[in-house]
Amino acid sequence: METLTPTNRTRVVRHPERAAYEREQIYSILDEGYICHIGFAVDGQPFVIPTAYGRSGDQVYIHGSAASRMLRSLAEGIDLCLTVTLVDGLVLARSAFRNSINYRSVVILGKAGLVTDVEEKTAGLRCLTNHVVPGRWEEVRPPNQTEMLSTSVLVLPIDEASAKVRSGPPKDLEDDFSIPVWAGVIPLRTQMGEPVPEEHLASGVAAVDTRRFSRFLR
Amino acid sequence: METLTPTNRTRVVRHPERAAYEREQIYSILDEGYICHIGFAVDGQPFVIPTAYGRSGDQVYIHGSAASRMLRSLAEGIDLCLTVTLVDGLVLARSAFRNSINYRSVVILGKAGLVTDVEEKTAGLRCLTNHVVPGRWEEVRPPNQTEMLSTSVLVLPIDEASAKVRSGPPKDLEDDFSIPVWAGVIPLRTQMGEPVPEEHLASGVAAVDTRRFSRFLR
Repeated sequence: METLTPTNRTRVVRHPERAAYEREQIYSILDEGYICHIGFAVDGQPFVIPTAYGRSGDQVYIHGSAASRMLRSLAEGIDLCLTVTLVDGLVLARSAFRNSINYRSVVILGKAGLVTDVEEKTAGLRCLTNHVVPGRWEEVRPPNQTEMLSTSVLVLPIDEASAKVRSGPPKDLEDDFSIPVWAGVIPLRTQMGEPVPEEHLASGVAAVDTRRFSRFLR
Repeated sequence: METLTPTNRTRVVRHPERAAYEREQIYSILDEGYICHIGFAVDGQPFVIPTAYGRSGDQVYIHGSAASRMLRSLAEGIDLCLTVTLVDGLVLARSAFRNSINYRSVVILGKAGLVTDVEEKTAGLRCLTNHVVPGRWEEVRPPNQTEMLSTSVLVLPIDEASAKVRSGPPKDLEDDFSIPVWAGVIPLRTQMGEPVPEEHLASGVAAVDTRRFSRFLR
């Protein structure tokens, strides 16, 4: 896959060794995550709102109430930043300065477009639904006309983007090796608990197959 | 504790029943999280950057390289948005429209100030370090003068802020109860893996006490 050309706005300046501009790496992070933080400004005030997303090819879909400030603002084609962050561990160094966090993040800059074509809008909602829970779209009731009208879907091209990744042990100064304190990495990951059934399940409904939640089983 | 007065910018308009403006609830979310996403605009382009933070009383501290674009921009006193999001579960409804995510989030709006006083800067760094790993500041080498100079610490007052919380089961329409598909909540939580020691540990150093990572043991 292609490597994106960093712009002045997406080039990683601090710790350039942590940068990645290959679509492949950017997409693997986007595909493992499912919550993004979207930044946009209204009357000069930046807002950062968490929301679900889905990736399809070189595009990211987001959605929300057609009446929400975020969706209405973004649909006007204003500049936005969509950031996805996966936290992999706490990095405990022997000096306060070198404590760190292992993470993988992606930043996408651009403008989102309102999806008006009904077929593409349906495809976008399917992408979003199945990004979070694979196969879910095919087993639930699809949106009716009222639900479709009350939802907006936006699409953001992945053109101007970069990833930043920190991994591995703390990087202590050699002079600090003798400090008698534990140093290393505390790995972190998101795990599933026991599924909690809704109280009105139709009789004979099978338990949810948790294998589909593969991102939480690594 | 006090309840914050929502402003036009922090009032939760979509799903107002999910809003919380009490400092107590806002602080409990801030204290459980340790990564925030900071939104700020440079030349009209919003950026959203993940970073660690710490809370002390009615303030949040962030830090970073004194040379970073984010720290330099924020230190000028521009408007920012600091958002913390905790994901608690996937909500599987019987209709695509009602799928959801259980989460707790906090949005703080304001301007950050550069901490120049050395004592307060040290207190801010201690707060940040111990927010992520309780007690860590007291056992590691404190920053030397060079490290202090290369780090900027910013402080953000928690004045204009709100929380938004979704919890509980999917809210399907009664007409959808008979759809023969599992519905309910998949609880999610962040858990610790086995600590990975750095390879140059001084001899006789005790293993890290994982009880201090209480936010990952719930």
